[in-house]
Amino acid sequence: MSTYVAPIKITNGELSEEFIDKFDTFLFDCDGVLWLGTHLLPSITETLSLLESKGKQLIFVTNNSTKSRKAYTHKFADFGITVKEEQIFTSGYASAIYVRDFLKLQPGKDKVWIFGQSGIREELGLMGYETLGCDDPRLNEKFDAKTSPFLKDGLDNDVKCVVAGLDNDINYHRLAITLQYLQQDGVAFVGTNVDSTFPQKGLILPGAGSMIESAAFAANKRPAYCGKPNMNMLNTIISAFNLNKQKCCMVGDRLNTDIRFGVEGGLGGTLLVLTGIETEERAVTKTDEYPNPKYYINKLGDLYEFTH
Amino acid sequence: MSTYVAPIKITNGELSEEFIDKFDTFLFDCDGVLWLGTHLLPSITETLSLLESKGKQLIFVTNNSTKSRKAYTHKFADFGITVKEEQIFTSGYASAIYVRDFLKLQPGKDKVWIFGQSGIREELGLMGYETLGCDDPRLNEKFDAKTSPFLKDGLDNDVKCVVAGLDNDINYHRLAITLQYLQQDGVAFVGTNVDSTFPQKGLILPGAGSMIESAAFAANKRPAYCGKPNMNMLNTIISAFNLNKQKCCMVGDRLNTDIRFGVEGGLGGTLLVLTGIETEERAVTKTDEYPNPKYYINKLGDLYEFTH
Repeated sequence: MSTYVAPIKITNGELSEEFIDKFDTFLFDCDGVLWLGTHLLPSITETLSLLESKGKQLIFVTNNSTKSRKAYTHKFADFGITVKEEQIFTSGYASAIYVRDFLKLQPGKDKVWIFGQSGIREELGLMGYETLGCDDPRLNEKFDAKTSPFLKDGLDNDVKCVVAGLDNDINYHRLAITLQYLQQDGVAFVGTNVDSTFPQKGLILPGAGSMIESAAFAANKRPAYCGKPNMNMLNTIISAFNLNKQKCCMVGDRLNTDIRFGVEGGLGGTLLVLTGIETEERAVTKTDEYPNPKYYINKLGDLYEFTH
Repeated sequence: MSTYVAPIKITNGELSEEFIDKFDTFLFDCDGVLWLGTHLLPSITETLSLLESKGKQLIFVTNNSTKSRKAYTHKFADFGITVKEEQIFTSGYASAIYVRDFLKLQPGKDKVWIFGQSGIREELGLMGYETLGCDDPRLNEKFDAKTSPFLKDGLDNDVKCVVAGLDNDINYHRLAITLQYLQQDGVAFVGTNVDSTFPQKGLILPGAGSMIESAAFAANKRPAYCGKPNMNMLNTIISAFNLNKQKCCMVGDRLNTDIRFGVEGGLGGTLLVLTGIETEERAVTKTDEYPNPKYYINKLGDLYEFTH
């Protein structure tokens, strides 16, 4: 148990500048912080420009594995924000790095079965891995053990890993073949992110974790989870940019994922924004359920608005 | 921990007759005991006739929730075996009884959302419950929160329970709406059976449990499971037939479901058949992992063959 330190609310220009000056690198969660669905939050472009003009490094960290980093740059561009692919970390990319650097699978030789969407396939493809499953249209056919093209000639012995994530096209065919690979000896099991749900248009929808846990329960095998708040994701970012943790601040809208990610990762700071699902009351309440942020602010754009 | 009593292997006519004479009622698991998929096992018809000629009561107990009891009688008839609907207990039927007798939902007023197949819908329908979901073809359409007919006019406030089971047509639309109902206060959550997998044509395929756990993880809510080895199922059978437990014997091919069901239920006897996935070695090995049966036999048909 760490001692409770009351979170500081950023409410004026002086506090904003003091906060910004403390850090060299800002890690941003995206949905709920920069935008809500298809709606950009106020003064976001100005805030990001302000930070860049002060020489800060900006990194965007999302648990969404359905899009590749390249596809994410287009999403930013649609909001009028220019970011490089290198500034983006998705849980799909984190999973691909895990496959390469931790599992040490060999591109051109070892293959990966994907239960998930194209974001994972594209990231693994860029690293030279052949993948199976994913959005292969033959998986949309009704499952029949006798006719499935993924069983007819037997499983592919070169598959050494299953990567599982959110799949809007989940069906019995995908679950059944995923389980066949998970039952093989020596096939590793990687989950993009543990989130049981995610918010969309006022609804709480089933998340990657709820699908991955289904496969885990069937296979009686635990996945290695890669997204926030797992430290695999943070360690990868720290090492890729050779960052000084003390000079990094995690900015997010969820206490239990984003703020936990920053606190447990030993980053110098955490900033909670109240544009997502958290309330001011929860931000300052001391509990064992989640860590408190070091700073919080009504909306990220206030950093700009307070100083202009 | 109970004391270990070595299981008795039935290997001749004398042991067969002694075994049969001990019990008035035999509860049979079906797949792996009477048949394997579409293949009837040897001397099954003769064995069942022998038991009936001796005045024994035969009850068939299956965790398969996809077919109704009525549909199951047709499956028996296809094998040339005549059974009455009343002799069959499926986990779908057990779930319907749970909804009626334990949750005490009111037919004609309270409704049930089904994440599963027609076996559940038919059993609830026979009890007078209106059901939603299940094999409604509109759930085969790709999920879109804006257009889903199950969300457009809001959720149905009369739904007081979700019953979940094996669903070969599982998709995101079904998972998403199931989760919306599970998030409602006062909506109960019933799972047909906990089996994580089931064997089919030499494969181990995802079972009801793996789908139900997906919904449970998303909703952060635990289901009340109804199939074997849960005692809800056994208590229902005992009370429906007013049985003397000491004179009942459970016959099955799985130690951890069928035999556990009989042992934990306090039945007078249990018989393991080796035509399923268990081996003789496992049948007689003392372990904390599963209970041992009181009797075991190579195949159920031996009961007839040894005496004729």
